[in-house]
Amino acid sequence: MSRENKTEEDGKENMAAWLVGIKTLRIQPYTLLPLGISCGRCNSCRVGCYNLCSEMKFFGSPPTNGSLATMVLHPANLCFKLPNNVSLEEGAMCEPLSVGVHACRRANIGPETKVLIVGAGPIGLVSMLAARAFGAPKIVMVDIDDCRLSFAKKLGADGTILVSTKIEDVQDEVIQIENAIGTRVDVSFDCVGMDKTKTMTTALSATRAGGKVCLVGLAQSQMNIPLTPAAAREVDVIGIFRYRNTWPLCIDFLRTGKIDVKPLITHRFSFSQQDVEKAFETTARGGNAIKVMFNL
Amino acid sequence: MSRENKTEEDGKENMAAWLVGIKTLRIQPYTLLPLGISCGRCNSCRVGCYNLCSEMKFFGSPPTNGSLATMVLHPANLCFKLPNNVSLEEGAMCEPLSVGVHACRRANIGPETKVLIVGAGPIGLVSMLAARAFGAPKIVMVDIDDCRLSFAKKLGADGTILVSTKIEDVQDEVIQIENAIGTRVDVSFDCVGMDKTKTMTTALSATRAGGKVCLVGLAQSQMNIPLTPAAAREVDVIGIFRYRNTWPLCIDFLRTGKIDVKPLITHRFSFSQQDVEKAFETTARGGNAIKVMFNL
Amino acid sequence: MSRENKTEEDGKENMAAWLVGIKTLRIQPYTLLPLGISCGRCNSCRVGCYNLCSEMKFFGSPPTNGSLATMVLHPANLCFKLPNNVSLEEGAMCEPLSVGVHACRRANIGPETKVLIVGAGPIGLVSMLAARAFGAPKIVMVDIDDCRLSFAKKLGADGTILVSTKIEDVQDEVIQIENAIGTRVDVSFDCVGMDKTKTMTTALSATRAGGKVCLVGLAQSQMNIPLTPAAAREVDVIGIFRYRNTWPLCIDFLRTGKIDVKPLITHRFSFSQQDVEKAFETTARGGNAIKVMFNL
Amino acid sequence: MSRENKTEEDGKENMAAWLVGIKTLRIQPYTLLPLGISCGRCNSCRVGCYNLCSEMKFFGSPPTNGSLATMVLHPANLCFKLPNNVSLEEGAMCEPLSVGVHACRRANIGPETKVLIVGAGPIGLVSMLAARAFGAPKIVMVDIDDCRLSFAKKLGADGTILVSTKIEDVQDEVIQIENAIGTRVDVSFDCVGMDKTKTMTTALSATRAGGKVCLVGLAQSQMNIPLTPAAAREVDVIGIFRYRNTWPLCIDFLRTGKIDVKPLITHRFSFSQQDVEKAFETTARGGNAIKVMFNL
Repeated sequence: MSRENKTEEDGKENMAAWLVGIKTLRIQPYTLLPLGISCGRCNSCRVGCYNLCSEMKFFGSPPTNGSLATMVLHPANLCFKLPNNVSLEEGAMCEPLSVGVHACRRANIGPETKVLIVGAGPIGLVSMLAARAFGAPKIVMVDIDDCRLSFAKKLGADGTILVSTKIEDVQDEVIQIENAIGTRVDVSFDCVGMDKTKTMTTALSATRAGGKVCLVGLAQSQMNIPLTPAAAREVDVIGIFRYRNTWPLCIDFLRTGKIDVKPLITHRFSFSQQDVEKAFETTARGGNAIKVMFNL
Repeated sequence: MSRENKTEEDGKENMAAWLVGIKTLRIQPYTLLPLGISCGRCNSCRVGCYNLCSEMKFFGSPPTNGSLATMVLHPANLCFKLPNNVSLEEGAMCEPLSVGVHACRRANIGPETKVLIVGAGPIGLVSMLAARAFGAPKIVMVDIDDCRLSFAKKLGADGTILVSTKIEDVQDEVIQIENAIGTRVDVSFDCVGMDKTKTMTTALSATRAGGKVCLVGLAQSQMNIPLTPAAAREVDVIGIFRYRNTWPLCIDFLRTGKIDVKPLITHRFSFSQQDVEKAFETTARGGNAIKVMFNL
Repeated sequence: MSRENKTEEDGKENMAAWLVGIKTLRIQPYTLLPLGISCGRCNSCRVGCYNLCSEMKFFGSPPTNGSLATMVLHPANLCFKLPNNVSLEEGAMCEPLSVGVHACRRANIGPETKVLIVGAGPIGLVSMLAARAFGAPKIVMVDIDDCRLSFAKKLGADGTILVSTKIEDVQDEVIQIENAIGTRVDVSFDCVGMDKTKTMTTALSATRAGGKVCLVGLAQSQMNIPLTPAAAREVDVIGIFRYRNTWPLCIDFLRTGKIDVKPLITHRFSFSQQDVEKAFETTARGGNAIKVMFNL
Repeated sequence: MSRENKTEEDGKENMAAWLVGIKTLRIQPYTLLPLGISCGRCNSCRVGCYNLCSEMKFFGSPPTNGSLATMVLHPANLCFKLPNNVSLEEGAMCEPLSVGVHACRRANIGPETKVLIVGAGPIGLVSMLAARAFGAPKIVMVDIDDCRLSFAKKLGADGTILVSTKIEDVQDEVIQIENAIGTRVDVSFDCVGMDKTKTMTTALSATRAGGKVCLVGLAQSQMNIPLTPAAAREVDVIGIFRYRNTWPLCIDFLRTGKIDVKPLITHRFSFSQQDVEKAFETTARGGNAIKVMFNL
């Protein structure tokens, strides 16, 4: 994150920290996820859904310059100033946090929404933090990895359940989920980025009539899922693609301390060639790495 | 439909026609679909979503008395008076029409919604009539049966496309659908009651980013569908279960002539034992039967 | 409306008609109402509510050049091509029609919405046409001018009621309105641009519990109105300021014939100095003038 | 609050505390505000808006028996069990808290909503507590009474501003409000139960374009307010009448400690004739009384 990356009109005032929201390294599937630049003129842009802009240009996809650089050029209106009490590192976390915030907005999370989160990886964790900030009174997370669940619990999940990868266990696990929630699940977030047959089956089965399942993590194109019994209970399946207008809210969450993203940053590297390579290796290995950060 | 089936307070005034909304014979899958009676006390009922009441009692499921009878007992507040210019036959059509009306409400159909309807059976047809009444400016229907499509066209579909049952044809058919719509599909209704792998693939692929797919017709529990690419365009999948608070609107559509259901009634039978059997056989055979009606 | 007013990329293809949406003369209060140009960067713009952009630049307000000219410069993305079967005159009517369309969207007008329109001037009339196109099954209009009501009736209002300017008549008039609607009013549009004490009292009193009153026509800043009894029935008061993203829908309404704006054009003038003056005098006089059009 | 007031099926299990939600004494205007019983059959009831039921029967309005009694008869489905860690006193506070909860739901309060509350009386205070529980990140309260503001501050308001009763001070006070909020007000609650000319002028002026003003406190029927400039910024005025389906959420807020209502109970009386009279006198006097409670 380069403090050089100032826009013209802003550069004049002071040396305050700037958030560009790029150079954020997501660990799974270890790709760079920079901000996109929407066209501002198509129908999606006009109605405010610029994340659905069909001419979106992404950082790092040629011919747009990549973001693994010490300086980048970015439209001023897509740059957000960080408050004094938010570090550059925390600011960079707005990118994954935005995914959780957008999911919470689309699912209309509030103080009446009991939430199930399937998958306790980085996206599951930011979705949990976001859901909490949106007022969700009860959040239960499930995963196949006990370490991740311990981490989720420490971060604030109300309950965690270790699940298997076997589809025949769904029914039993749904009962455990209901017991942990204490009532019915209003909204489920499927935050898993691998084979989703079981995760979506769990989400669809656990969600109450009239509830919602959000497909936050995306993986294989084709899914074999029990959609009919869910549809017959008017459980809607909500698609989530990136986010829109989330940065001001994310920065506000960080500024007020409503969300603390620092525990998610598990590894730090300098920006030398050698360290960049190490960073990629670290994320590829997975393990206890959640968010790997470059310090420029 | 028995004119005897009056409620106490109404019986006094006159011999006007009464709509009880029972004894309606849906042709596919030839079961009786009477009104349900919700508990009025559970959370779904309290917030007005009584169709999701978990204690709903259906006519014809023991111990609730069936509706293949000349007289039935029904709560007065679930009985709706028919206007003078709406016949008992038309009134009985409120049942399937309600499915289309509820789907249009949940999908928020209006004068800006271009609609694709997959399946031109009875439910596809009432969904088309409802979408038209909700202001949909363009409705294209697809089916594997040319006769059904001709009928749909006569009934008011703007365009019809004969499709195959082969999944590999989806891409070509989606192009045909887009050409027929003239732009992008905002909302797709999948109204097919058989194998939905192809129909849902078509609906998910044809719908624009930010649009909706409504699962109106229900069939096999498990579906193998390309949900991820749709979710990544924020295409939501909306489940539809029966309907709520639809009867007054349906009756109004019939009264004002905004919807004409008479062409959907293709066969009429008396209520003798022999005729009832014939009626069931007719619907089971399918063919050109859309709605089979008993006249009491 | 100048056919010269082409944008660069469009000018190449053909001599098709172009709609710029300017040079539209509203009769009351006889000012020019051109399109505004929003900043595209503020929060209102980002979320798609660009009509609320605080840096909106209006045509005709210095330093933005006025639109009483044969040629104007306008951003290409705010220009909309007219279909072959929509004349320049009809296209120019998108401006007032947009007001009605935006009001219908904000009030969520549909096939279940019984509508009262207070005021049968140009804005009342376009609101009526828009409400009809949005599916409103019953529209009753009230005015103090019998000529206007006759015109409204001819244009398609279901009922019209001559009202007084006396506040003490409200109660009686509300009864007449309810009789004309046949049931309760779901949404009221107050489209009057003069003293609104009585018009708003009528709208607030006539609207059912849980309904909406839209303030479409604006006049004096201060109002003395019975807001409490309306609020105690959860009647919401919805403000309407211009419109957003309405032009494609308006053009579609004209193209498909769903709305016919031609009867609203009551006077036509050339664009000579003399005729422009006459046009302004005509609108200032009011009388039977509804929409005064310049033909360039 | 009588522990005798058990319903038949519940009485069997144990002597757990029961919340009937009656016998709650609101201090202003010192009337008894018991639960109403809706008809369950009208259109408002059917769609879940039972608070707008036109046949609502209120406790204490003849012929319905009053609630200043040690035992009352109440429908079982309108009785809610209190958890072990919620006292009867706290439970009785669900009644005023419900007003704030319903206002927050109707105004769609969430973590992005900056809130102004006009009036720091009991209803203003419960609205503040509810808005906080709904995630409002910034809440500023204004009142003409410094004691009330101190109390509001102690209870959790982010900022408080002492205002005058003079209409000509509105402009200055709005600037103070904006400074205290740090940005624009998204939603204003007018919680004052006396002359609302100034309070509504403040609320309408302070709220941002596209925001909402909720009329929570009701007083004189007629208001003289600057509605036009607010409507021209699409500031909607939302009416609030009592509440619907709020009790489970309120009880949950109390159970989890998300809301602490105990500081609002400033006076306690026994249920002797003498004490009841004293209680009424206390509330009538106002002063530092917020909520006056009977202990049975």
